[in-house]
Amino acid sequence: MRLMEERILSEGRVLPGYILKVGSFFNQQIDIELLRAAGEEIAALYGDCGVNKILTIEASGIALATASGLSMGVPVVFAKKHKSSNVGDDVISARIHSYTHGGDYDAVVSGEYLRRGDRVLIVDDFLAKGCALRGLIELAEKAGAEVVGAAIGIEKGFQGGGDDLRSRGVRIESLAVIDEMDGDKITFRKSV
Amino acid sequence: MRLMEERILSEGRVLPGYILKVGSFFNQQIDIELLRAAGEEIAALYGDCGVNKILTIEASGIALATASGLSMGVPVVFAKKHKSSNVGDDVISARIHSYTHGGDYDAVVSGEYLRRGDRVLIVDDFLAKGCALRGLIELAEKAGAEVVGAAIGIEKGFQGGGDDLRSRGVRIESLAVIDEMDGDKITFRKSV
Repeated sequence: MRLMEERILSEGRVLPGYILKVGSFFNQQIDIELLRAAGEEIAALYGDCGVNKILTIEASGIALATASGLSMGVPVVFAKKHKSSNVGDDVISARIHSYTHGGDYDAVVSGEYLRRGDRVLIVDDFLAKGCALRGLIELAEKAGAEVVGAAIGIEKGFQGGGDDLRSRGVRIESLAVIDEMDGDKITFRKSV
Repeated sequence: MRLMEERILSEGRVLPGYILKVGSFFNQQIDIELLRAAGEEIAALYGDCGVNKILTIEASGIALATASGLSMGVPVVFAKKHKSSNVGDDVISARIHSYTHGGDYDAVVSGEYLRRGDRVLIVDDFLAKGCALRGLIELAEKAGAEVVGAAIGIEKGFQGGGDDLRSRGVRIESLAVIDEMDGDKITFRKSV
């Protein structure tokens, strides 16, 4: 999405360790018109796929998931992060490794809200090595739901998680895919 | 808001310890049409107040804040929860006590995103004893911003936090105020 790429170029800041700061417009302060456009773009991409539920994970994925849900008219479910696997009976959980914070956590969601027969679109703000996305796919599959695909705000293509999942047949649409981040120079993948 | 009260009556579940479970439509699975209506109601309540920023706190406040931001056309900033006060230089923080989880945490936001002169509407999903809301007001005041008011999804009026802040002059608009929760019987405050 051209709007997203332009904002990354004008306001994103590359920090050591391949960190991209986009807090000024995307994941701490949210530019609401960019978010609205992002939700509409995701609705256009997946609008004809019979999606009946959007799945995301707290916390920063919730805004994009909400905007997408509002554009598509489907409910949003968010998985919670638990440090331990000591969760109740009627929950589905998946272990996720966090490279950002180190260590593992469990993504959990109530079995009431994710069910067999659901057609799920996974929405998240970032995709890098793909740990969170793989965990959300696992959650949906454990519930017996079908994953229609994933919609991502910003994908760090050079970290490989997205392409690995694509090669296994998962549809992933990212509003911006960064293929190189070298100092201040950011190179986006060309849309095909 | 009648829609919110009806959903609480039909789907909310009262658990021991004055816990109200509304995960099926409001804070784990989000009914997107209810959320849209809630955002529009908040926009109608505060639309003429010159609000230029919405402030919320991760995680479950983000959805309602996003819907409100989309309806009002103003950016959303969310404070993060930190376990320690060991945060960077350019951040504003406020200590908040959590009765739900026990213990304290710090709500932090970058000084870049909350500034002197901002007219801030605080949005959150729940209000009970008011600890989170008081913390967010403190954050905004530390930044030199003006708090126009607060918009809350569900207020547990019987826990007193909202009325305490109202008595100090804070405008608080809650989409549903529960004045009594006795077993399965839920009594709402009459709108005035």
